[in-house]
Order: sequence, then C-alpha cells, then structure tokens
Amino acid sequence: MIDSMTITLHVTVPDEGWVERLTDLDDRVDLRVWDFSPPQPSHSVDLAVLPYTVSSAGLRQLDPERIAVIQSQALGYDGVREALPSGVTYCNAVGVHEESTAGLAVALLLASQRQLDVYARERGQWNRRWGTSVADRRVMLLGYGGIGIEMEKRLEGFGAEMVRVAGHRREDERGLIHGTDELPDLLPTVDVVMVAVPLSEATTGLIDDAFLAALPDDAVIVNVSRGRVADTDAIVRQAGRVRYATDVTDPEPLPAVHPLWAVPGVLITPHVGGMSSAMQPRVDRVVRGQIERLLDGRDPHSIVISP
Amino acid sequence: MIDSMTITLHVTVPDEGWVERLTDLDDRVDLRVWDFSPPQPSHSVDLAVLPYTVSSAGLRQLDPERIAVIQSQALGYDGVREALPSGVTYCNAVGVHEESTAGLAVALLLASQRQLDVYARERGQWNRRWGTSVADRRVMLLGYGGIGIEMEKRLEGFGAEMVRVAGHRREDERGLIHGTDELPDLLPTVDVVMVAVPLSEATTGLIDDAFLAALPDDAVIVNVSRGRVADTDAIVRQAGRVRYATDVTDPEPLPAVHPLWAVPGVLITPHVGGMSSAMQPRVDRVVRGQIERLLDGRDPHSIVISP
Repeated sequence: MIDSMTITLHVTVPDEGWVERLTDLDDRVDLRVWDFSPPQPSHSVDLAVLPYTVSSAGLRQLDPERIAVIQSQALGYDGVREALPSGVTYCNAVGVHEESTAGLAVALLLASQRQLDVYARERGQWNRRWGTSVADRRVMLLGYGGIGIEMEKRLEGFGAEMVRVAGHRREDERGLIHGTDELPDLLPTVDVVMVAVPLSEATTGLIDDAFLAALPDDAVIVNVSRGRVADTDAIVRQAGRVRYATDVTDPEPLPAVHPLWAVPGVLITPHVGGMSSAMQPRVDRVVRGQIERLLDGRDPHSIVISP
Repeated sequence: MIDSMTITLHVTVPDEGWVERLTDLDDRVDLRVWDFSPPQPSHSVDLAVLPYTVSSAGLRQLDPERIAVIQSQALGYDGVREALPSGVTYCNAVGVHEESTAGLAVALLLASQRQLDVYARERGQWNRRWGTSVADRRVMLLGYGGIGIEMEKRLEGFGAEMVRVAGHRREDERGLIHGTDELPDLLPTVDVVMVAVPLSEATTGLIDDAFLAALPDDAVIVNVSRGRVADTDAIVRQAGRVRYATDVTDPEPLPAVHPLWAVPGVLITPHVGGMSSAMQPRVDRVVRGQIERLLDGRDPHSIVISP
C-alpha cells in the first residue's frame, strides 16, 4: 500500500485531543486534525479517523481519489455502504465497544430484574418489592459475535444457564450454538433474551408480536443492538406481560411523547452502550495498530467495506 | 440430640406455603405452622424456622425449655445474641442470600457507573452522557466472606482488577487478601469499594470522613452490608465528590425527609438484597439439610449462637 522506507503516512484525527494522545508515533507519520467537515484536506490521506458522531450521510461528499482508508470509531456500519464513494476502504472499530456495550447490557438486565429504575423514580419512599435474580434463570444470547461473547463472559458468574443463538446452528468448544430457525422452540424455555445481532434484512423486526408471544410471562428482552431489530409497536402492545430494557430505539432519538417511554416494565437508555471510560484507551489502541500495519505495508485490520 | 430410631422430629415453619413445599419429608418429621407469635407451641420444638421478617426483639419472650434450635432465614444476626434466651441454638442462613445479595451489589455498581438511576428519573428525555465502565477499574472487595466471594465471581468477567480486603492479612490460592489495617494505603488506589463486612464494633462507622476523603474523585462505594457500617452524615457531606449506591441505610427505613435521598450520586434500594427469586429454593434446601442432620443425630449446620 505504501513504501514503508521512503513515504510518510498521512493520518487525520478528528480533534486535538487525539494529537496529544498520539505524540509518541513513528517519525514517518504525518498527523493532522480533520473532523470530516468540508473542505477535505488537499493532500492524500492514507488513514482518516472518523469522528464518533458523524453519520454515514456525511461520507457522501468525500473525494475518493484523496482518501484511502477510513477508520470508524463505531462497530455498526448500517447505511455506510450506500453512502461511501467507491474506492475508499472502511474499517469498523472491532475491540473498542464490545466490553462497554456488554457491560451496559448486563447493567440493564440486572436493573430490570431488581427494579432499580422503579426505586430510582420512587426516591424518598421505602417500598420493598421482591425482585428476580439472574441465578437459576435461562438466558438466551441472541447474536454471538463480539458483544455476545462479552455478555456471556460477564454473565458466567451469575449462575444462569446460557442458551446461545446465532444465524446458523454450529458447535464450538463450549458446545452447541443454536440457529435462529430454532427460535420458536427455544423462546418459550428462556427467561431472558440478550439481543446483540447486527442490523440486517433478516434481523429487522425480528422481535415482533410472535416473538414476544412465545416468551413466558415476565420474561425480559435486553436490546443493545439496533432499535429496528424490534417492532416498537409490538413492544408497546406486550409491555406489562414481558419487560424490555433497551439502549436503542426506533426512531432514535425517541420523541418525548412516544408511548414506549410510558408503558410499564420498559427501561430505556439513550444509545450510550459505547459511551464509557472504556472507549478511549481501546480506540487509541485500534488506531495505533492500524498505523503500524500501514507502515509495515500490510492491509488494515477490520475492513468491512473494500474499495 | 434425638434418637433417630424412635423419636419424631418436631419442626415448625412460619406459614402454610412451607408445609406445601415440604410435603415429601421423612415420616418421622412432625411439621406444624408457627410464626413465632405467642403462644409458643406447648410441645417441645426441635427445629423452628423463623419468619424472614421477625426482628431479634421478638425472640425475648421465648421459653428456652421448649425450643432447641432456631433456623433463621437471614445471614446477619446483629442483636440476636442480646435478645435470645440462653439454652437455645441459633443458626443463620448460610447459602441462602449470598448470590442474591451479591447480584444486587453488582446491579447497584453497574447502575451507578452507567447512571441508570438518572436515566430512569429523566424518563422521556434523550440526554446522552458518558458513563464509567467497570473494565479497567480497580475494585476493592471490603469483606471476603460468602457475599464477598460471590461478588468476586460475578465481577470476574468485567475486566476489573480486584483488591481483596478482610479483617486480617492472609493468603489463599488466589493470592493476597489485605488486612483492614492497610485501608489507608489502599483506598487512594481504588475506583470502587464493594462493602460486605458483618456489622461489629470494628466495622460500625468504618466508612467515615477519613475513609471517604482517602478515595479518589468519582469513586463509588456499594454497600450491601449494614447501614451503620457507614457514617451517614459523612456520606451526605462528601456526596457529589464520591458516589454511594446502597441497599442498607441508618436509620432503616430511611425517612422520606432524610437528606441522603436528595444528595447527588446516591442510589438507594430499600434493603432488598435477599428479596429475589433466588431465595426460596435456597432456604428450602437449608431447612431440608438441617432436618436431615437432626434426624441423623448430628448437630445442625451454621450454628452462630450455641446454647
């Protein structure tokens, strides 16, 4: 990709904070600040780190002749393929948000089981209520990628029985991973569904009326995937019988007047799965790794869209 | 204690639900309902299961001539020694609440780190905030008995560094357990303190102004022990700089007008650590075990006060 002996690597980062954290880079790296707002730098950019908050629409106006690789700070990249000019390589942020997002997922599960949201809203009252433990429960991991594996690691100490589900039935060293075609048989047997599937045609609206109806009373669904994986109207209809704890909604942001805020047993955080102190050291590590690979003349890691 | 070949074991349980769950007991067991309200049964009772909610004061009027062993459904027994007539054996409920209480402790920690209480109270608003992960943090387990060990088990998957502290410095197969005399040196180095010490003279008021002042900014203390382990006024004074997530208060119930409800960064649940679906199967198991031991002529398990 570049000749590591003679050429400088041109890298852009979204703000000055990045420059301060990356002062110790290799001499061959030319590091500049660019936050993806026009104008695009006039020189060729080998690696451009995308701001965490830029939407895929912001990629449309890029000149692909002067930008080789974009490093996103997000894991999901729905909508990017449609917006990105061809000729640009796009890498997602593997290893940055999985731990933080899985941590929030477990926080949402525990809070819903022990009704922490209710206690928080009742501040000043001493109303004791029985809660539901995670111990003795059957917990489905729906989606067994990076976040699913991190959720499993965190839930292991809680004494739950895990039921792993991915796109296709397979086995790994821990045993069976069910396929999504087995959901109708599995859903009635679980108390908890932890959702961490990528958004795709197959997963859009996956959590619909039939899905919810198959779950036992007082089951809880925890969603840290994408809001559109669930049919919001179906959730509103069945809230009260089943619970829903979610970091993602459809639409997003969820308008103040939306009925999902008001139905019982629904706990919502405003898409903050990746927004924890765990992010910055991990995204720094990813960018340093990419710079090293490019300096070595290797392809970058975690390419999800090739030129 | 009793001759297992000829004598029936007289057992009392606090309500009819217990009788239904224990229908399959050994023929030699005479099972009756008594909730510890007067009058005490006129026959001798070999094992009396205490209602979960009876306070130690309710033990004063017992006739020790007609009651051999009391099985509590609680783990803590502060105040019992002073109230219990001599001649009665008192067993606490080891193996009943540890998992449930440790589960709530981790729930409180995660909720405070990710501000779930704030989101719950702001329902209807989409205010994204950065949170604090458990990953990369140094977490002190203050108290390393049953609950401390269960907390450790649950926190293991979160990528935190654990610092274990018990009454006296010792080693186990996992390495060093610090003594409480090392707290002044350790507190400035940790981000989280999980409190699960028994209430004693040594632990009353342990979390005082000096303890809190030694912690770094934005540290969080999670208390599932007893309210009096913390100096509530000190917490109120230092809230805002450090956070406090607690299932126990002093006094308890905490009056609606108490300032602890209103200060920032304080999350309170009304002493519900043991109140989860995990309790009933475990307390049933403990009582069945005690009946088996007494029928075999052995001493009961988990004696904390001998006659």
